[in-house]
Amino acid sequence: MGGMGLKVGVYGGSGYAGVELVRLLAGHPEIGALSVASRGYAGLGIGEVHPQLSVDGTYVSPEEIEDLDVAFVAYGHGESAETVRELMRSGTHLVIDLSADFRLPHEELYGEWYGEHPAPELLMEAHYGLPEVFGAPAGRLVANPGCYPTAAILALAPVVRRMEGIRSVTINALSGVSGAGAKPSVKTHFVSVNESAGAYGAPRHRHTPEIETILRRVGEVPDVTFVPHLIPITRGELETIVVDVEGVPEAEEVLGWYAEDYEDWVFVEAREEYPHVAHVANTNRCRLSAAVDSRAGKLLLFSAVDNLLKGASGAAVQNMNLALGYEEDLGLEHLE
Amino acid sequence: MGGMGLKVGVYGGSGYAGVELVRLLAGHPEIGALSVASRGYAGLGIGEVHPQLSVDGTYVSPEEIEDLDVAFVAYGHGESAETVRELMRSGTHLVIDLSADFRLPHEELYGEWYGEHPAPELLMEAHYGLPEVFGAPAGRLVANPGCYPTAAILALAPVVRRMEGIRSVTINALSGVSGAGAKPSVKTHFVSVNESAGAYGAPRHRHTPEIETILRRVGEVPDVTFVPHLIPITRGELETIVVDVEGVPEAEEVLGWYAEDYEDWVFVEAREEYPHVAHVANTNRCRLSAAVDSRAGKLLLFSAVDNLLKGASGAAVQNMNLALGYEEDLGLEHLE
Amino acid sequence: MGGMGLKVGVYGGSGYAGVELVRLLAGHPEIGALSVASRGYAGLGIGEVHPQLSVDGTYVSPEEIEDLDVAFVAYGHGESAETVRELMRSGTHLVIDLSADFRLPHEELYGEWYGEHPAPELLMEAHYGLPEVFGAPAGRLVANPGCYPTAAILALAPVVRRMEGIRSVTINALSGVSGAGAKPSVKTHFVSVNESAGAYGAPRHRHTPEIETILRRVGEVPDVTFVPHLIPITRGELETIVVDVEGVPEAEEVLGWYAEDYEDWVFVEAREEYPHVAHVANTNRCRLSAAVDSRAGKLLLFSAVDNLLKGASGAAVQNMNLALGYEEDLGLEHLE
Amino acid sequence: MGGMGLKVGVYGGSGYAGVELVRLLAGHPEIGALSVASRGYAGLGIGEVHPQLSVDGTYVSPEEIEDLDVAFVAYGHGESAETVRELMRSGTHLVIDLSADFRLPHEELYGEWYGEHPAPELLMEAHYGLPEVFGAPAGRLVANPGCYPTAAILALAPVVRRMEGIRSVTINALSGVSGAGAKPSVKTHFVSVNESAGAYGAPRHRHTPEIETILRRVGEVPDVTFVPHLIPITRGELETIVVDVEGVPEAEEVLGWYAEDYEDWVFVEAREEYPHVAHVANTNRCRLSAAVDSRAGKLLLFSAVDNLLKGASGAAVQNMNLALGYEEDLGLEHLE
Repeated sequence: MGGMGLKVGVYGGSGYAGVELVRLLAGHPEIGALSVASRGYAGLGIGEVHPQLSVDGTYVSPEEIEDLDVAFVAYGHGESAETVRELMRSGTHLVIDLSADFRLPHEELYGEWYGEHPAPELLMEAHYGLPEVFGAPAGRLVANPGCYPTAAILALAPVVRRMEGIRSVTINALSGVSGAGAKPSVKTHFVSVNESAGAYGAPRHRHTPEIETILRRVGEVPDVTFVPHLIPITRGELETIVVDVEGVPEAEEVLGWYAEDYEDWVFVEAREEYPHVAHVANTNRCRLSAAVDSRAGKLLLFSAVDNLLKGASGAAVQNMNLALGYEEDLGLEHLE
Repeated sequence: MGGMGLKVGVYGGSGYAGVELVRLLAGHPEIGALSVASRGYAGLGIGEVHPQLSVDGTYVSPEEIEDLDVAFVAYGHGESAETVRELMRSGTHLVIDLSADFRLPHEELYGEWYGEHPAPELLMEAHYGLPEVFGAPAGRLVANPGCYPTAAILALAPVVRRMEGIRSVTINALSGVSGAGAKPSVKTHFVSVNESAGAYGAPRHRHTPEIETILRRVGEVPDVTFVPHLIPITRGELETIVVDVEGVPEAEEVLGWYAEDYEDWVFVEAREEYPHVAHVANTNRCRLSAAVDSRAGKLLLFSAVDNLLKGASGAAVQNMNLALGYEEDLGLEHLE
Repeated sequence: MGGMGLKVGVYGGSGYAGVELVRLLAGHPEIGALSVASRGYAGLGIGEVHPQLSVDGTYVSPEEIEDLDVAFVAYGHGESAETVRELMRSGTHLVIDLSADFRLPHEELYGEWYGEHPAPELLMEAHYGLPEVFGAPAGRLVANPGCYPTAAILALAPVVRRMEGIRSVTINALSGVSGAGAKPSVKTHFVSVNESAGAYGAPRHRHTPEIETILRRVGEVPDVTFVPHLIPITRGELETIVVDVEGVPEAEEVLGWYAEDYEDWVFVEAREEYPHVAHVANTNRCRLSAAVDSRAGKLLLFSAVDNLLKGASGAAVQNMNLALGYEEDLGLEHLE
Repeated sequence: MGGMGLKVGVYGGSGYAGVELVRLLAGHPEIGALSVASRGYAGLGIGEVHPQLSVDGTYVSPEEIEDLDVAFVAYGHGESAETVRELMRSGTHLVIDLSADFRLPHEELYGEWYGEHPAPELLMEAHYGLPEVFGAPAGRLVANPGCYPTAAILALAPVVRRMEGIRSVTINALSGVSGAGAKPSVKTHFVSVNESAGAYGAPRHRHTPEIETILRRVGEVPDVTFVPHLIPITRGELETIVVDVEGVPEAEEVLGWYAEDYEDWVFVEAREEYPHVAHVANTNRCRLSAAVDSRAGKLLLFSAVDNLLKGASGAAVQNMNLALGYEEDLGLEHLE
């Protein structure tokens, strides 16, 4: 990490999160050299493959990348751990993994939801990279949070931290189609998605245990009901969370908790107005709100993020900034 | 109701529900004469005002309509009751009101949610027009159900009828923009809605008491938490309902209840596959499904309708058919 | 074609045009038996595979279909001709081919744009199924027109028939994504299409020679410039056609030609108002308009169709109706 | 324009172009003080009115703004000139007008298309702010180009400059709905726009004379046929331009002209690949391409911009930068 700027590499630089990472890192003032690997596109110009990016440079194969200060791994779940292990062994100063491979605390839980863990010895070393709740990443390995868990935990942590006796938590989530990945399928065909909407993955979506186990670090929470839906937008997520708890607080009180807990963090903000996806799309923000259904005795929380930014690549760069001691929004100022 | 076919009139024939009614009634085989009233457009060709309709005929003013066999009133809430009263007094054989004015059972509840009732003496006379739950309309006045309550009650009635000890019901609803009405506003501007999504109306949306009071005719239900969201589609609604109940049944059992209760009704069908809006858009269907979150101990119900058809005008024509002794799908065969 | 209704078969019943055909044919009053073949889905319920269809019945393999009165072939270009040949040989009363295989008048032209013709001996036998221009189909083989040519020829034929000295014709077309087919690809991924628009296929889209050669049956036309664009809608096409001609007529005169030529045909209508896609979507209509750019001395024509209905399956059923002597809109009344 | 940074004001800061200006100016490194005026919202927080903006500060009334170095006027056509006149009189160093009021070269032409000019004495003073064609703005008054003319002139100028004998130019344009302004109307209602597309304004859209007269500064052009269409996207414009000219050049030659003329400008780039709206949306780019229809003997040009950035507010900031001697992309780096 010498005077010429950081040497940074991206593995999996042609998926949606990878492309977004490249866009952000290409404009980051502390980066001296950026290598972007893609097995499928090695040798092609990044800007040729993705005409929406005005980035110079050429995709390389993963093997061509060496001597990184910081590595971002944007592979799929299960595919990431192997690369992470090699990077850790080779002494990379900071490894930020965008997959789910290092988000769950132990091997058994991972096995139950994802299958056998490819690098269980690293699980204890990973820091869950949600700085507004857990502070700047410590150590060399950052598990970048899932998009749904980001929105859910930012909304719920201040409540869970303060309230006992939560009886149930129901999370209803809406997601844009970029959340389903870049691979063409019947499910992501324009004609399938447009003028439609539907639940999927429930009642056993893999983000459920991530939400539960991470929240349990700050307080007691029952098992969560999580129902995601696909809606016809490109990017953005909105979660409507219903909390059944003894002694429902006033909405204003909850907004006060948010103000208090997120005071020092630029990307998270609570407002009285319910957040819309358009309030956060193309930004690194999380916008929160709260209301009370006094008839039914329920607390309602609302949380919106851009799944590719605060829900993935924006958070990853924010984590890099904090891990290296920079301002959290360095290179992300236009996404505030 | 002589040999020349029915004399039918539509009041409020230029809003979204009105236009849809006109489309359906213009193709109905038992209708001999159709009058369509619109204050704003009286004197103009219906097909000129709405180029998507290939309907002959001209809008008239409400005063010009006389001697109807069947009247459909598609005015807004509070505006409808006055016209309904006159139609009832003038001896119209059947009056189908698409507003909320006659859906709630008594004046006090109406007052709490909508304001003073303009024609309370008719409340007792109205039949709630959800035939799959309450049978063919009896009497001369049909209160056509709200769009959200249609989807909610069709999903919940078979459960409420059979289960005791329901502790909570949370309804998360997604709606297309036609549900917000034809009047231009910042809220319905394309740029506001497109690439966005947001909750609105919660926690006190006016469809809440309709859902509760109608459901209580078939069984016990606690106060319902109802959170509607606007999403960027033109038509269709999807509800994801979470039921917290002692002794959660198996999903298959619930699907069996649906099959049993809706066996004789062509427009309601349950499937294992979760319904998508596209499965019901431009049809008079309601599609249902059920799942169980066994970890959190919750029953999940899914219900989709087209808000302008099964959620409004299609149901209104179905109600007319049943009230007059026709097949429920007469003139609606292509919407099955 | 006995008293029990027509025996009808669909080959390629799981693509977008095939599904639309099944929907229409399932509601057609003269059809006694409908067989639907799909190689990929043989054995599966049609309504299982396509939940938006409430059609009973099961996909069969093409080999299982026998003794048809009418066959619809909805295969891709080049794949269709073989099946058509067999159907013609086996004595099928009427074969309607939705591919491009029999639309061009001779082998050489087909070869230039599509490759070697698989059944050239049938080219002379095929009737181009645009009845509003060429009358009810004669003979046993109907070449159902392409979607773009349908819109273009309906707009241009009345002009070409009456005007000499046309110097140039430029067709700018916008198409919904269903026009790109059901096969998932990067091009049809929701994220690629949404919030975007782009030209494709120009300057050598395969519908160009179809437009030119068919139009030349009614008058003289220079080579046509045809530029299609993909826009983020599911269905519908809009063409804006600029004609450079000596002695530009008044727009009213052109509207008069349209009225005259299409007087006896229910699905084609010209209006002063420019057609929007929404005026024809989900219908079998073609809507036309005309304007004059008097400064630049150009005639502007506007034409809109639903690519899956008037541009494919609706026209195919209309062709069947006319070939068999029924009213052109039998079973299509709700699509007028 | 002292050491404390520029004093900048925006008039009309709550329309789409105004909001975009505020977003850009709030992040501009040379601006010391930013005042934003809006008659309708004076006194309200900018970020309250537009939750998608994380901008501090409050709307003021126009009268409250004083002593500006740079003023941006984002009023409608005809409403702008009065404010511009006052700003010029009061000695504002630089006035950038985003309306059409100062784009046409003389009073008569303005009168023919817009009505009587409110400040004709300033017409001669205005510099047409398309720097890639006419260089950095000179003088104190910049007429910021229209969105359609920006895309058209950038595509056509290099051709018009080099070719004689152009016989006709036809511009087919697709526009997102933000181009229709923020005022709610039937035309911009989500339900009107979604799943539709239509031509409007042709054959006498007001951008036509702007395109013609500006192009005639670089070469000879016949009267232009310009047909804009509204499509269901929020932002972005795509123009497909057909040029009929003696001796059609090769596409590669035209791409070479683009490369040559725009070599020194960061925001304009030509590629072989046809531009899609998604390649320029949310950027200040213009992307160009060219093709030849050798059968019909026509040159095809393709040009895409974001109507709110390169087509309005991005260009306005770029003009400010150039007029004040900064790099053209200062504060716009993330929009390259």
